[in-house]
Amino acid sequence: MVKKYKKELDVSYTLGITLTIEVLKQRNDLVNRVFIHSKTIKNESFNLIEELCNRNNIPLIYNDKVFNILSNKENCFVIAEFRKYNNNINELDNHVVLVNPSNAGNLGTIMRSMVGFNLNDLVIITPAVDIFDPKCIRASMGAIFHINFTHYNNFLEYYNINRARHYYPFMLQSSCNLSSIDIKSPYSLIFGNEATGLDDSFLRYGNSVIIKHSNYIDSLNLPIAVSIGIYEFTKNKFK
Amino acid sequence: MVKKYKKELDVSYTLGITLTIEVLKQRNDLVNRVFIHSKTIKNESFNLIEELCNRNNIPLIYNDKVFNILSNKENCFVIAEFRKYNNNINELDNHVVLVNPSNAGNLGTIMRSMVGFNLNDLVIITPAVDIFDPKCIRASMGAIFHINFTHYNNFLEYYNINRARHYYPFMLQSSCNLSSIDIKSPYSLIFGNEATGLDDSFLRYGNSVIIKHSNYIDSLNLPIAVSIGIYEFTKNKFK
Repeated sequence: MVKKYKKELDVSYTLGITLTIEVLKQRNDLVNRVFIHSKTIKNESFNLIEELCNRNNIPLIYNDKVFNILSNKENCFVIAEFRKYNNNINELDNHVVLVNPSNAGNLGTIMRSMVGFNLNDLVIITPAVDIFDPKCIRASMGAIFHINFTHYNNFLEYYNINRARHYYPFMLQSSCNLSSIDIKSPYSLIFGNEATGLDDSFLRYGNSVIIKHSNYIDSLNLPIAVSIGIYEFTKNKFK
Repeated sequence: MVKKYKKELDVSYTLGITLTIEVLKQRNDLVNRVFIHSKTIKNESFNLIEELCNRNNIPLIYNDKVFNILSNKENCFVIAEFRKYNNNINELDNHVVLVNPSNAGNLGTIMRSMVGFNLNDLVIITPAVDIFDPKCIRASMGAIFHINFTHYNNFLEYYNINRARHYYPFMLQSSCNLSSIDIKSPYSLIFGNEATGLDDSFLRYGNSVIIKHSNYIDSLNLPIAVSIGIYEFTKNKFK
């Protein structure tokens, strides 16, 4: 009836009540069905799910076994199955570019910050972690359903589409401090992978940026660095 | 010989080679012994561990079984056992105050950012997650060994010690935007728990602060909010 999640499947799952409400609100056109565990408490949130499903002709399926297959959390009692989708970036807007992100939780947390600061366009340079991994969806707290994203096989494939943008690669090799950066739009904020960051070749694209920190740590955690970067670039819009 | 980690034990563990090097460099006085798996590759990092142990008379113990007890990661081949310690905050310095933090990974990530921005004094209001949980140590990437920390049973117990400090509670109920805040030292940056944030009672302490964000998310992830706050308060020191 359902299969344990794998990247190759053409569906993914929202594990939990909050995420399920989010996908039903944002993308009900993609939802195949919603599974309900017999232990679900019929509270206000449950009534909302029932209402959203009824209104959109989405079947509610009572079945406890699927929870053993899809979730290893004990407190997950509602799951939506939805079809994976493409939701391409808007080329004229500001972008976050992640080069080879490798951790699903990190990718989800980054999307949560992006949506928090109204930066909704995400470029992913592959190889990369699966954006539809249920762990990624959970870490995004549903923000994924507000994100436009496009995958490219390498950075140049993205760069060559529009060289007139303003590129800001974040890297420890830079000498230009984030807090005194000159911000020009539309911009692309570029971040490397968790383990390696961006290599020296990125120094040639636009204006490289460093988030200066002490020598007592090797680097900031990736979602932290991305979020501080987005915060600094967008804060004048949140006065 | 060893027991699976529990909060009640008077020792904890660094799971992995990088963390083990960090505890040996920063706090070798606390290390009881270092366990080595037979699969350990004898590279430069291993040589450094061997050297640090020999210099400080710390036994290196070859034993594969302890890894099954202490670690569920397949690529963990070195573990240090160290005695838990107190390392009280400096009352005159700037502080981060976490009210009831509940997630070990989040607490570790926060310490990594703190040390990254030279803010090394952490106040924890209990109940709270165990700072010596190996998951917390791992998420800190070893930053924990640079942190001074003190636990208090409630916020007032901490507040009453020195009311002359400048208190900045971070909360969505505030109307004062982080990016235009007037910074006075010594300061205490106060953050609530992952699920609930700070309640209204904190509006009466010092100057409350909000990190403004869109309505498309309920809140920022806790380590993200703390790190953005620390970044803004310390960035003039990193010119």
